[in-house]
Amino acid sequence: MRKNSKEAIVSAAISLFNTRGFSGTSIRDIAGKAKTNPANISYYFDNKHGLLEYCFTAFFEGYIEEIEMGFSLMDQGAALSLKKIAENIMAYQFDNSHLTRLILREISIDSQVVREIMSTYLAKEKFYFSKVLERGLKTKEFRSHSANYMIIQLKGLLSMPFLNTHYMAEVLHVFPHEKYFAEKYTKEIFNWIDGVLCNHHAGKPYAAVL
Amino acid sequence: MRKNSKEAIVSAAISLFNTRGFSGTSIRDIAGKAKTNPANISYYFDNKHGLLEYCFTAFFEGYIEEIEMGFSLMDQGAALSLKKIAENIMAYQFDNSHLTRLILREISIDSQVVREIMSTYLAKEKFYFSKVLERGLKTKEFRSHSANYMIIQLKGLLSMPFLNTHYMAEVLHVFPHEKYFAEKYTKEIFNWIDGVLCNHHAGKPYAAVL
Repeated sequence: MRKNSKEAIVSAAISLFNTRGFSGTSIRDIAGKAKTNPANISYYFDNKHGLLEYCFTAFFEGYIEEIEMGFSLMDQGAALSLKKIAENIMAYQFDNSHLTRLILREISIDSQVVREIMSTYLAKEKFYFSKVLERGLKTKEFRSHSANYMIIQLKGLLSMPFLNTHYMAEVLHVFPHEKYFAEKYTKEIFNWIDGVLCNHHAGKPYAAVL
Repeated sequence: MRKNSKEAIVSAAISLFNTRGFSGTSIRDIAGKAKTNPANISYYFDNKHGLLEYCFTAFFEGYIEEIEMGFSLMDQGAALSLKKIAENIMAYQFDNSHLTRLILREISIDSQVVREIMSTYLAKEKFYFSKVLERGLKTKEFRSHSANYMIIQLKGLLSMPFLNTHYMAEVLHVFPHEKYFAEKYTKEIFNWIDGVLCNHHAGKPYAAVL
């Protein structure tokens, strides 16, 4: 019962933060939507900032796990490992699309909680990405590149559809919540890895190895 | 004198919206930072929403112009035209980096003004991108692709560094406000066009034509 109430609060908060913005949402609004009382929110999260911090932590704990699962395949090749990481991130963001949208927007604001996330989870993310990119250079799977510029691009490709769900639906008529999208777009990211990052014809095809 | 005051208001608003969020900023805060009085803001923009709408319009008027300048080169080839569009957008966003960051974040919120921007400027942006992509298919410069999925990727690549300036600086130690970055990253986008979109070896090199 208590767990359900906590989940209801988080889910109501994500929905309100996404429509009214973080500052435009009050604890009272969240309590109303979650059908609980404000004191209950204080009990679990202290205040609105605690609630946002909880969302960040919940998102990035799962996110880093997905990266680690792909990273663990590095012995089978850097391209394969990077593709698995990208595939896992896509599936994770697809399964948590509202939370992902909130996080991708809030991470662009310079706040205390964001600085903490950067020095922990995002530093870890960079570590894993850099290791895979280095490895691919060493094995000549990847052509010569600047790791940081590759990370920027990969993160841009992975985040765009989840941050801009309304644009996607209204302007492009592409629906990121549909399974078809996740599959097709994951292939597009594989194309980026093959076309931009890989030495042509040097990599093994993904499907044949996994 | 009056023009300067208007500019001071816009510049103060952009800065505050970027640090405190739109909802977290009051007209009084903006007036304080711009060293003017709240009545002056009402005179020019009615209210805070009018001010945000002004920012959107100012950004997208210039943005679409940059696209049109690249689009006008389409007779010289689709890849060349698309590269020029990307280069122009990069330079424009680089020159207006604070405004760009505000717009890229606010466009992800489902609001009345965003819906209007989508049905005008972003519909126009899609039109130009689609025309160039179609043309490249026809001339066989581009390999077979889904235009919408290419637009998503290109927009992701173009927006990531400007939305996430803090992440770039703090985690990757890459500084989007430096000229070096703009030049190097523009080349990365050319690599994407060549590696993902183009039929290999079919396109003419950019520098040789322009």
